[in-house]
Amino acid sequence: MYFHVQRLINDIASDEPDPAAANALQEGLGGQFGEMRTMMQYLFQSMNFRGAAAKPFRDVIQGIGTEEISHVELIGTTISRLLDGSPRYQGEATDPLDTPGSGGAIPLNIALSEGNIHHYLVGAQGALPVDSVGNPWSGSYVYNSGNLPLDLLYNLMLESTGRLQKCRIYEMTDNATARSTVAYLIVRDQAHENAYAKALESLGVDWKTLLPIPKTNAEKFPEVKKLLDLGLQSKQYSFDLAGQSEAGRIFQGMSPSKDGTTLDASEQAPEGVPSVISPERLEEFSPGLDADLVALIQATAEMEMADVVDSFGPVATK
Amino acid sequence: MYFHVQRLINDIASDEPDPAAANALQEGLGGQFGEMRTMMQYLFQSMNFRGAAAKPFRDVIQGIGTEEISHVELIGTTISRLLDGSPRYQGEATDPLDTPGSGGAIPLNIALSEGNIHHYLVGAQGALPVDSVGNPWSGSYVYNSGNLPLDLLYNLMLESTGRLQKCRIYEMTDNATARSTVAYLIVRDQAHENAYAKALESLGVDWKTLLPIPKTNAEKFPEVKKLLDLGLQSKQYSFDLAGQSEAGRIFQGMSPSKDGTTLDASEQAPEGVPSVISPERLEEFSPGLDADLVALIQATAEMEMADVVDSFGPVATK
Amino acid sequence: MYFHVQRLINDIASDEPDPAAANALQEGLGGQFGEMRTMMQYLFQSMNFRGAAAKPFRDVIQGIGTEEISHVELIGTTISRLLDGSPRYQGEATDPLDTPGSGGAIPLNIALSEGNIHHYLVGAQGALPVDSVGNPWSGSYVYNSGNLPLDLLYNLMLESTGRLQKCRIYEMTDNATARSTVAYLIVRDQAHENAYAKALESLGVDWKTLLPIPKTNAEKFPEVKKLLDLGLQSKQYSFDLAGQSEAGRIFQGMSPSKDGTTLDASEQAPEGVPSVISPERLEEFSPGLDADLVALIQATAEMEMADVVDSFGPVATK
Amino acid sequence: MYFHVQRLINDIASDEPDPAAANALQEGLGGQFGEMRTMMQYLFQSMNFRGAAAKPFRDVIQGIGTEEISHVELIGTTISRLLDGSPRYQGEATDPLDTPGSGGAIPLNIALSEGNIHHYLVGAQGALPVDSVGNPWSGSYVYNSGNLPLDLLYNLMLESTGRLQKCRIYEMTDNATARSTVAYLIVRDQAHENAYAKALESLGVDWKTLLPIPKTNAEKFPEVKKLLDLGLQSKQYSFDLAGQSEAGRIFQGMSPSKDGTTLDASEQAPEGVPSVISPERLEEFSPGLDADLVALIQATAEMEMADVVDSFGPVATK
Amino acid sequence: MYFHVQRLINDIASDEPDPAAANALQEGLGGQFGEMRTMMQYLFQSMNFRGAAAKPFRDVIQGIGTEEISHVELIGTTISRLLDGSPRYQGEATDPLDTPGSGGAIPLNIALSEGNIHHYLVGAQGALPVDSVGNPWSGSYVYNSGNLPLDLLYNLMLESTGRLQKCRIYEMTDNATARSTVAYLIVRDQAHENAYAKALESLGVDWKTLLPIPKTNAEKFPEVKKLLDLGLQSKQYSFDLAGQSEAGRIFQGMSPSKDGTTLDASEQAPEGVPSVISPERLEEFSPGLDADLVALIQATAEMEMADVVDSFGPVATK
Amino acid sequence: MYFHVQRLINDIASDEPDPAAANALQEGLGGQFGEMRTMMQYLFQSMNFRGAAAKPFRDVIQGIGTEEISHVELIGTTISRLLDGSPRYQGEATDPLDTPGSGGAIPLNIALSEGNIHHYLVGAQGALPVDSVGNPWSGSYVYNSGNLPLDLLYNLMLESTGRLQKCRIYEMTDNATARSTVAYLIVRDQAHENAYAKALESLGVDWKTLLPIPKTNAEKFPEVKKLLDLGLQSKQYSFDLAGQSEAGRIFQGMSPSKDGTTLDASEQAPEGVPSVISPERLEEFSPGLDADLVALIQATAEMEMADVVDSFGPVATK
Repeated sequence: MYFHVQRLINDIASDEPDPAAANALQEGLGGQFGEMRTMMQYLFQSMNFRGAAAKPFRDVIQGIGTEEISHVELIGTTISRLLDGSPRYQGEATDPLDTPGSGGAIPLNIALSEGNIHHYLVGAQGALPVDSVGNPWSGSYVYNSGNLPLDLLYNLMLESTGRLQKCRIYEMTDNATARSTVAYLIVRDQAHENAYAKALESLGVDWKTLLPIPKTNAEKFPEVKKLLDLGLQSKQYSFDLAGQSEAGRIFQGMSPSKDGTTLDASEQAPEGVPSVISPERLEEFSPGLDADLVALIQATAEMEMADVVDSFGPVATK
Repeated sequence: MYFHVQRLINDIASDEPDPAAANALQEGLGGQFGEMRTMMQYLFQSMNFRGAAAKPFRDVIQGIGTEEISHVELIGTTISRLLDGSPRYQGEATDPLDTPGSGGAIPLNIALSEGNIHHYLVGAQGALPVDSVGNPWSGSYVYNSGNLPLDLLYNLMLESTGRLQKCRIYEMTDNATARSTVAYLIVRDQAHENAYAKALESLGVDWKTLLPIPKTNAEKFPEVKKLLDLGLQSKQYSFDLAGQSEAGRIFQGMSPSKDGTTLDASEQAPEGVPSVISPERLEEFSPGLDADLVALIQATAEMEMADVVDSFGPVATK
Repeated sequence: MYFHVQRLINDIASDEPDPAAANALQEGLGGQFGEMRTMMQYLFQSMNFRGAAAKPFRDVIQGIGTEEISHVELIGTTISRLLDGSPRYQGEATDPLDTPGSGGAIPLNIALSEGNIHHYLVGAQGALPVDSVGNPWSGSYVYNSGNLPLDLLYNLMLESTGRLQKCRIYEMTDNATARSTVAYLIVRDQAHENAYAKALESLGVDWKTLLPIPKTNAEKFPEVKKLLDLGLQSKQYSFDLAGQSEAGRIFQGMSPSKDGTTLDASEQAPEGVPSVISPERLEEFSPGLDADLVALIQATAEMEMADVVDSFGPVATK
Repeated sequence: MYFHVQRLINDIASDEPDPAAANALQEGLGGQFGEMRTMMQYLFQSMNFRGAAAKPFRDVIQGIGTEEISHVELIGTTISRLLDGSPRYQGEATDPLDTPGSGGAIPLNIALSEGNIHHYLVGAQGALPVDSVGNPWSGSYVYNSGNLPLDLLYNLMLESTGRLQKCRIYEMTDNATARSTVAYLIVRDQAHENAYAKALESLGVDWKTLLPIPKTNAEKFPEVKKLLDLGLQSKQYSFDLAGQSEAGRIFQGMSPSKDGTTLDASEQAPEGVPSVISPERLEEFSPGLDADLVALIQATAEMEMADVVDSFGPVATK
Repeated sequence: MYFHVQRLINDIASDEPDPAAANALQEGLGGQFGEMRTMMQYLFQSMNFRGAAAKPFRDVIQGIGTEEISHVELIGTTISRLLDGSPRYQGEATDPLDTPGSGGAIPLNIALSEGNIHHYLVGAQGALPVDSVGNPWSGSYVYNSGNLPLDLLYNLMLESTGRLQKCRIYEMTDNATARSTVAYLIVRDQAHENAYAKALESLGVDWKTLLPIPKTNAEKFPEVKKLLDLGLQSKQYSFDLAGQSEAGRIFQGMSPSKDGTTLDASEQAPEGVPSVISPERLEEFSPGLDADLVALIQATAEMEMADVVDSFGPVATK
Repeated sequence: MYFHVQRLINDIASDEPDPAAANALQEGLGGQFGEMRTMMQYLFQSMNFRGAAAKPFRDVIQGIGTEEISHVELIGTTISRLLDGSPRYQGEATDPLDTPGSGGAIPLNIALSEGNIHHYLVGAQGALPVDSVGNPWSGSYVYNSGNLPLDLLYNLMLESTGRLQKCRIYEMTDNATARSTVAYLIVRDQAHENAYAKALESLGVDWKTLLPIPKTNAEKFPEVKKLLDLGLQSKQYSFDLAGQSEAGRIFQGMSPSKDGTTLDASEQAPEGVPSVISPERLEEFSPGLDADLVALIQATAEMEMADVVDSFGPVATK
């Protein structure tokens, strides 16, 4: 059973909207090696797991799988922010009705030339369950052979590929919003790489100097280095509310990344930051409520008028 | 941010393995109107939500979305149980090595004639992210227009269609394992139908006698009736750890199903039941550890010997 | 612009329901070489056609394309009839509410073992836009290079492949409902083969004895022979309401099938037969109206009570 | 059975070619909520319809479905016009052979940077059965549960989403060719919204002020306003040749859009405008006939020489 | 550049036709972890390889990739044999015209209940590029990150998964035709597992007892044991015509499978067996030549009459 | 059984990197009518071929099929070269560790605006198994009806469409690297067109002036003309190592293209040119070996130090 708290797992830096960067990040969300895939793959591997004696392995997979849902939430929100207000639409925001197109305006014209047109046409400047060339996420991505060594080997490869792709995305844009999330995920992917590599070590493998994959010089990626200095690549949270996870039996000892750190599974979860609801985009008809509908919402018993005025402006009598 | 507890949201009744029923349930897991879809759709609608004043609507969607992850876990586990040990394989369970095929045996022969062959060939008698004819789940299923009335209308239709399909699955099999989960989801889908219908009521719509969809006589589905008598179709849990959900502002008052009940959003979560790890299936090479590998796991510091012996049998020296 | 008349292009023979035959016919509806494909391919080729001097070629394509919509209607209705009442459900038809599942019944059990489970689970014993292994129809099937000789060559191959597959379906079942439509389409596919072959003849090609493809002995397929004796393989209707089609400039002279007939494009359309609405299937919740909803429909001004009683039975006061 | 007349359902304004706008319109043709989808969905719902007493509902669906075929024709032709001659290629049009590439020319270079490269590479500057990011149309889009309230609810949502997307496309371009068709479809989608909303009203629902979705100010979209002033959002044509449609029993009374109009189902069809065949594009080898092949066509009995000269220029002896 | 010789890489045992077994083998041909995938993945990895100093790694991949084309040929031919003459059709083979359907016969009826209907309907009792549930092979399967350690890790996992699936297929059928090819591929997959494991050893990894994956007891699979006794799991052929492959620098020393053998890369290719063309199937219209067409082929200058008579029987004058 | 030699079938001209041209060429590699498709289609048609007397037809298909593998290799390598070093990255190449991102650099920024972002993000500036809009290659493209006339007709259309698309690509770019391969394939596609047209001639068809398709003036495409002057459109190689191919019985006599040449099947294979391994791209982490891993490779027994130094630069002690 799963629970939620209205906080993001990591903070997102502020910067200008950037639809092209938003599109690159879609690979990390809905791509074959993105967060939706890790989330689903680990959920299926956990449900279908066999062999009670191997519970610590199951708990490693399940704990990382729970974290990946929060990663979907993080990267999805990041994409949404990179798109929000891009193109910058200066409608008459005091009128709770749409005014796009008035006077021949084409406020969404940018959609024809940058990133993924679906961000403006199918969604309302929000994240989509697709990769960076627009292919929808597919259930055929999920790997779950049921053979433990194979599933672990695949997961190690999967996390390393995710990290490789995020390193490449880092090199594609210097937008601070994009980089803050990409850097965080590069480091967390390494933590997961460490987890699966360690699980395979417990089955006898000696990785020597092969890890991490890819080989990077942290100091060349400043946002990444900051997080490595905090040791985030060597921590694994349980996200387990009842303390039943045995992941710590595996996630301990020297890091397989050979960076001199010791693996630590003692924390339940990071602190996170409050999540915030995005503003309206009238040019997208989103949320698309006119004065009458807003009035209806206002009439709902316990709803504070203040909130409404804040976000819709003063409501005109039609 | 998401958390997990090692409990299933509802109990699963025991019965014989049944690969054909397992396959029918795949529609409820990985089908176009199954639980993976509701889970993902509500996750995207929550991340991309616009308009702070409409937070109660977001919280309704987010709360149901969190519940859907537990539904994926529930129906996936149910499918796994319906497949487990089917076909019944009587290998030499005391030898921690596989013995399938010995003496010309074809223990997986049933895979050629019943249900989905991938259940035995690609997975190890576990659930798959596909529908009942084997189509992989697709990101193109997710609907998130960003227009609130449209998203609510779609969600109402989605829950009703899910419920319709589960009513039809109910009529396809009387396997108790399958029916216990199907009946539970029929009732919870109605609760979600009520939630979206109520949200649209707050925007002015009067449904009169149209709901619920489909129209059913509860007394004809005994497992369903038992849950309706408990009022489960009129409760919505928040699954919110910090009490910030405002879903209760919407999910209140008379049920749009016109069954005389009052909607209740006061509980955080159902109690659930402990989840259990499935036994090994040697004919699937799952988990696929031989004596050497088991010995390595045993050597892991804090792992109790008792667990290992229970599940792998006495370990022979090779 | 398109128009419709509530008639089927050909009659459908009566026989027992047969879900396996229904599934085989899906190839002819939603398969890569089925009627949805020809319909869409010719519609696109007509819209995108280039070169006014070649109008007769465009009109051949457009006329056949219009016929294909009626073929979709015919084969879809045939599939629906093959599924209708299969499995035979003997519910209490006088009660306009569903009773499936009462007393532990599993009226849809047959869906687990025959044909395509989606026929019962996703649809309500009706045709689906998929092929005989359940793959959804895809826009990638449509071929429209814009090069006239290539488009004609493709169309000839397409019609011949459609005819080949229908000959194979004929050999898979002797259900009279299935065979009546399959035989009709075998003959009409040959007419279309003749049309494209003739168009290529007007560009100089001499087919000699290659056509028709595949080579068949009509007398071995009695239902086919009956239609050949009527000369249906050598007629092409215009389906053109204003008499502007110039298809007759091409579809004339000796048949490329070398069967001794002369091509004839003088008729606008076949006579057809009245189309009939299928009965309710309560076990599918289709159409799913209870007494209250039926009463509402009854209250609609001009609707005759007689119709309602005929199809729903006497309406009980709830 | 279907018929055709060589007229477009609405006129298309003239403007410059615009491949990026053409690509945006592909969403309205081959997208998940485009005209191919409505056309196919209503065709399947009509074929598989159950319950003779509900014939007026079937006839509403069937009539709109027939109109959608003409919408496919309209938007496909519009896309074709937006692409035609773009890039502007000035070949030696008097030579009925291709001259592209001569002297190192790259007449199709624009295909590498604007819109969908397949418009030039796979098609010959014509419409494709794909959406605006190039995904082929899929049969999995078609929704036909067989449950009448659900099918109606889905159709209402579908038309509203189509209208929402077209409003967004309107804001992406001010090309007059694109806007003339987009504006027409915005208004017709509203008519269909009204039809399904009214059908649900006859089942008891009271929409109050929720419709239309999305809420727009007509005066902000001048091309739309002109059509609304003509009342096109409140008319539904039968497209029925034999006067058997009973759609008028439902499509009558006050408009659910609450715009003060009365619904009117008295007309069979709009007048339309003559359709025109596109000119040749030698750089695409379309239609791709050289002097020899043109001569062959000329030799065809009743074909007027004038036509040929008009479109191919004087034919040189090779 | 590639060359071919008309020989199969391994012999195929004779047995009865078996469409269900044929379908299971489709996973090994067109499945996500089948031979088409390994063939394409290694072809792409070879073309896109970077780093001249790592040529021996490239040559390992390229050599295995070449072998995989022959594996596609082997498993495809095996499937074709398992289908050929199934259902057993006893037409009048002396008449070079088709006679299916005569007297109401339904020679292809078996297609409705066993395996994949497309084997009879789309193909003519031959292999298809799909997996065992009918999903077409997809280019999205190909993994080629360009990072050498990752590509090697993936390839090791890929070969192990292929071997796991073939072990499961072995347990599904005891048809000798199916098993002879499955057993051969189990052993060759292990050879490829050894190759990639060894390549990673040269990058420092020590696998200890983890390999091979899955763990199997050879003596339980008699057909496999016979091949292991010949040492086929420890040989790698170069398939290189000019002796330029440096794969032997890696494929040498002790086997990573720890079975006591030494890896050997000294042979160019196995001997193989002559490939044979399948007989005609008149009920499939394959090849579909009637007396006239056969006569035409006979007239081709150098073609020996004897061949024709052998395969078509005496040619009747029509 | 297949063999390989480390040579490309044709030389590739040098020019600047050009990601947009690379993307256009993807259609020729992974598109519906590209080289992967011809390769796979002919491989399946060869494996599943029926009728020993028709062996010459099988051998035509099999020989062309073998050539297509080399075409995949050629066009894949061409794409790789068009991408390699684009964007031009000037890292510290003497350091065998990656330095991308240092000082805030965004070396892969070009990926956001040109061609297919996956070329940089998923692959390492290498070819992908997708078409020019990013759709993955699909097994559903393969056509193999088993009916010989139909398969030949399809193959003729397929080669002509491939040639048409390559003529269009030629008009999209004047990059010499792209054009050298495109021109070669235009000519070889014509050779294959001739082969299938000739095979149909042996079944009686007289093509008169219809071929080749599309009609082109060779002199307008200088790179093409050079190859036509060498007669490459009228040669077919056997690629058969044991001289068993009987393709020459069909591929002989006057060319169906009516260009006055005689078909010639006497050569085994073209000479080709040596293939070369691409340089490292550190910004892609490809191949991604650091000093430690390079040292390990160096330690491998027979590997020459010189090679390593050449490609990695002097190895620093870490």
